[in-house]
Amino acid sequence: MAREFQQKVFWLAVVAEFLAMTIFVFIGIGSAISFQVVPTTNVTAVQDNVKVSLAFGLGITTMAQSVGHVSGAHLNPAVTLGLLVSSQISILKALLYMLAQVLGAIVASAILHAVSPNKHVLGLNQLAMNLSPGQGIVFELIITFQLVLCVLATTDKRRTDLTGSAPLAIGFSVTLGHLIAISQHAFVGLQLSTHFSLARKCRQFSSLLIYWVGPMIGGLAASLIYDFILAPRSCDLSDRM
Amino acid sequence: MAREFQQKVFWLAVVAEFLAMTIFVFIGIGSAISFQVVPTTNVTAVQDNVKVSLAFGLGITTMAQSVGHVSGAHLNPAVTLGLLVSSQISILKALLYMLAQVLGAIVASAILHAVSPNKHVLGLNQLAMNLSPGQGIVFELIITFQLVLCVLATTDKRRTDLTGSAPLAIGFSVTLGHLIAISQHAFVGLQLSTHFSLARKCRQFSSLLIYWVGPMIGGLAASLIYDFILAPRSCDLSDRM
Amino acid sequence: MAREFQQKVFWLAVVAEFLAMTIFVFIGIGSAISFQVVPTTNVTAVQDNVKVSLAFGLGITTMAQSVGHVSGAHLNPAVTLGLLVSSQISILKALLYMLAQVLGAIVASAILHAVSPNKHVLGLNQLAMNLSPGQGIVFELIITFQLVLCVLATTDKRRTDLTGSAPLAIGFSVTLGHLIAISQHAFVGLQLSTHFSLARKCRQFSSLLIYWVGPMIGGLAASLIYDFILAPRSCDLSDRM
Amino acid sequence: MAREFQQKVFWLAVVAEFLAMTIFVFIGIGSAISFQVVPTTNVTAVQDNVKVSLAFGLGITTMAQSVGHVSGAHLNPAVTLGLLVSSQISILKALLYMLAQVLGAIVASAILHAVSPNKHVLGLNQLAMNLSPGQGIVFELIITFQLVLCVLATTDKRRTDLTGSAPLAIGFSVTLGHLIAISQHAFVGLQLSTHFSLARKCRQFSSLLIYWVGPMIGGLAASLIYDFILAPRSCDLSDRM
Repeated sequence: MAREFQQKVFWLAVVAEFLAMTIFVFIGIGSAISFQVVPTTNVTAVQDNVKVSLAFGLGITTMAQSVGHVSGAHLNPAVTLGLLVSSQISILKALLYMLAQVLGAIVASAILHAVSPNKHVLGLNQLAMNLSPGQGIVFELIITFQLVLCVLATTDKRRTDLTGSAPLAIGFSVTLGHLIAISQHAFVGLQLSTHFSLARKCRQFSSLLIYWVGPMIGGLAASLIYDFILAPRSCDLSDRM
Repeated sequence: MAREFQQKVFWLAVVAEFLAMTIFVFIGIGSAISFQVVPTTNVTAVQDNVKVSLAFGLGITTMAQSVGHVSGAHLNPAVTLGLLVSSQISILKALLYMLAQVLGAIVASAILHAVSPNKHVLGLNQLAMNLSPGQGIVFELIITFQLVLCVLATTDKRRTDLTGSAPLAIGFSVTLGHLIAISQHAFVGLQLSTHFSLARKCRQFSSLLIYWVGPMIGGLAASLIYDFILAPRSCDLSDRM
Repeated sequence: MAREFQQKVFWLAVVAEFLAMTIFVFIGIGSAISFQVVPTTNVTAVQDNVKVSLAFGLGITTMAQSVGHVSGAHLNPAVTLGLLVSSQISILKALLYMLAQVLGAIVASAILHAVSPNKHVLGLNQLAMNLSPGQGIVFELIITFQLVLCVLATTDKRRTDLTGSAPLAIGFSVTLGHLIAISQHAFVGLQLSTHFSLARKCRQFSSLLIYWVGPMIGGLAASLIYDFILAPRSCDLSDRM
Repeated sequence: MAREFQQKVFWLAVVAEFLAMTIFVFIGIGSAISFQVVPTTNVTAVQDNVKVSLAFGLGITTMAQSVGHVSGAHLNPAVTLGLLVSSQISILKALLYMLAQVLGAIVASAILHAVSPNKHVLGLNQLAMNLSPGQGIVFELIITFQLVLCVLATTDKRRTDLTGSAPLAIGFSVTLGHLIAISQHAFVGLQLSTHFSLARKCRQFSSLLIYWVGPMIGGLAASLIYDFILAPRSCDLSDRM
């Protein structure tokens, strides 16, 4: 671990993770709030799920394409947790990546705040009307579960049956999660750091639980199920393909 | 067959099929009903076909990407039937896969019911106004035909001309089917198991026919046409490429 | 040519072209008219361009994926013309493919007519209000030009720089054309045969010109420009990559 | 340089860049203005971000697929600048490409003007209400930064970890930028040349700054950060993969 700490490549990866996270959150949240600029439209009525889901998904695709060879482009603390549990990164790297992600999200929010004409609503995650915190956690858990499962399976070096683009497959998994989660919540979930940085005004402890605990359990579960049940480390998978 | 029954890999595949089906149905149906949460909107008017079609298609893509190397990720009884008729899986595996799919859909519906604020409408397949059961069967038959044909052609190991991602190609075939079927019916078709699990309240025998018989005939026809006419088993296809 | 005429593979390709065209037109036109089933909606207002564009594009992708190795999946007389001019198919095959395409479109329209509750409007191509026939031809010409150019470039066997899926690239080119053409016209253009089969009620000679002459000129121009200017047959292209 | 100037391949690339730019701008801007043809709809209310974002992104994908092997398909002065700074093209080629791009955009606008029934609004880039020029520049800068970063990373010949389609990845990066930028501005940004050609009527100097200076700084920054920090020329990257 000490050696890793001294490598230039290691710190470059942390910087790349920060940079990519900043752009990803800026565009994702920016696309989610931008419709409010149109003055003649009822905000709640025109919330365009497809647009926002594509922005988050293609944001992951584009950043994974751009810095995947530098940092791996986790861009989500739950993905980093999943890869840590799967023994693919060191605990030091995991902690620094999470820190870089949170910092990136804060910087993105600050830029977005500076360039938005409407300062009132800046993308605070909230549950949809009538949805309890427990119900919200289930949604966050399941959509993060499928994302981390997809990341682990798509980047599994033992597989020889995958031919397409990993950044595209993972980005579409992110889009998938948002397609269901955006309308269940009043706003975007899935992205922990996003929430963290935007939640400064949020005083509800339940929100913190939903958008951190849900995804973390989902990521942890995906990692354990993939590594111990579906494709145990000891298998070489070649008998299955 | 007895030997297959004893293999751990065999049962792992059944478990993976159940797990993937649960997530697929949860997100697909969840995206289809979630718009009803928005309180100020007329439900029937804003039904967003593109959103729901993308959710079902990318759900198949993501799950095929995630467990394709474990179970093959059929995620549809008509696909399983098509592969059985095409002699690619044993009858034992086909039956257990269908069971796993139906169980997965039931579990997904139960979770969705538990976490939805609006319990009244939970995604019961219904025909659009004015559409007769016979007309509905034709839609189900054709969209399942193109899906099973796409699965068989995309996974045909004799082909050397395919370079892209099979999970993406098959997922887009599912999206394609939903783009036409969602508005013809008042609700989503194509997904047999989905219907089965949600149909517990449904007393109309015609619905059962439409959403089971239509797709099964479509899958059967696709398998026979592909295997006996378009690309017979005896051909090596190399003369065509 | 006589020998080609006697080969089973040749006739199989014609059958595959007919089958794929039938499914493609059924789903494409079906998605374009299906919104009219929703009774409470103003038809012209909700015409969903993205939905219909995706249906046509993913229809091409799915069918090219499914029968591309059998017939090449032209699915458009202008593509067949472009490949004929590019000397990639015989004139006999070109004529039979065009016939199969027109027959497929007619059969698809007949099935669609039989299963649609609303028989009044079944997808007749019409120019948007205020658009002159000459303006319509320019749109048809340009969108077919980019499609045929994309087909020729994507399937150019001399290229070593392409890694993705050809069916997806070509399908997205079809989506692209529809994204602009659908709202310029009151209805879908691009698909010659579609028009032909649906135009039985159409008495305006100008429509025939727009939806046949425009695309044919576009396909011809793309073929000549690609083969004689951009990537002449005599070049091996290896100096460019 | 003198030798390059005399090569036929060099001039062919310039012609291809002009041709592809013409088609790209025609379809992109055409899709952005076409909704105004629908007479019963409030223009500002139905601006369909997803449709226009897909048209611009798939336009880049299709043209890169079609002429990428001829000219490289930059289709954006900021991409050309980024590749110049990255020493991948000569300054002569860069200048001629930019000229070809601006000419292509002007020709596209002229054709579009000729074939549009509504001559009043033809796609002039404008900032959204309440957005200051400085805020606009930030948006343009960031969305161009991510695009040029994606181009450089995706076409980096040292990488061995990329398997998908480069034209698709870059096209989705363009879509991503438009998903956030279209609603921030009253109209499409990102595409410098587009603006240039359409801005003939535009007398506001600030617009010129936003749509030229912002992207150029973004492209320059992406090139410097990629080449000197993330993936310096001296590295062979093989230690990272």
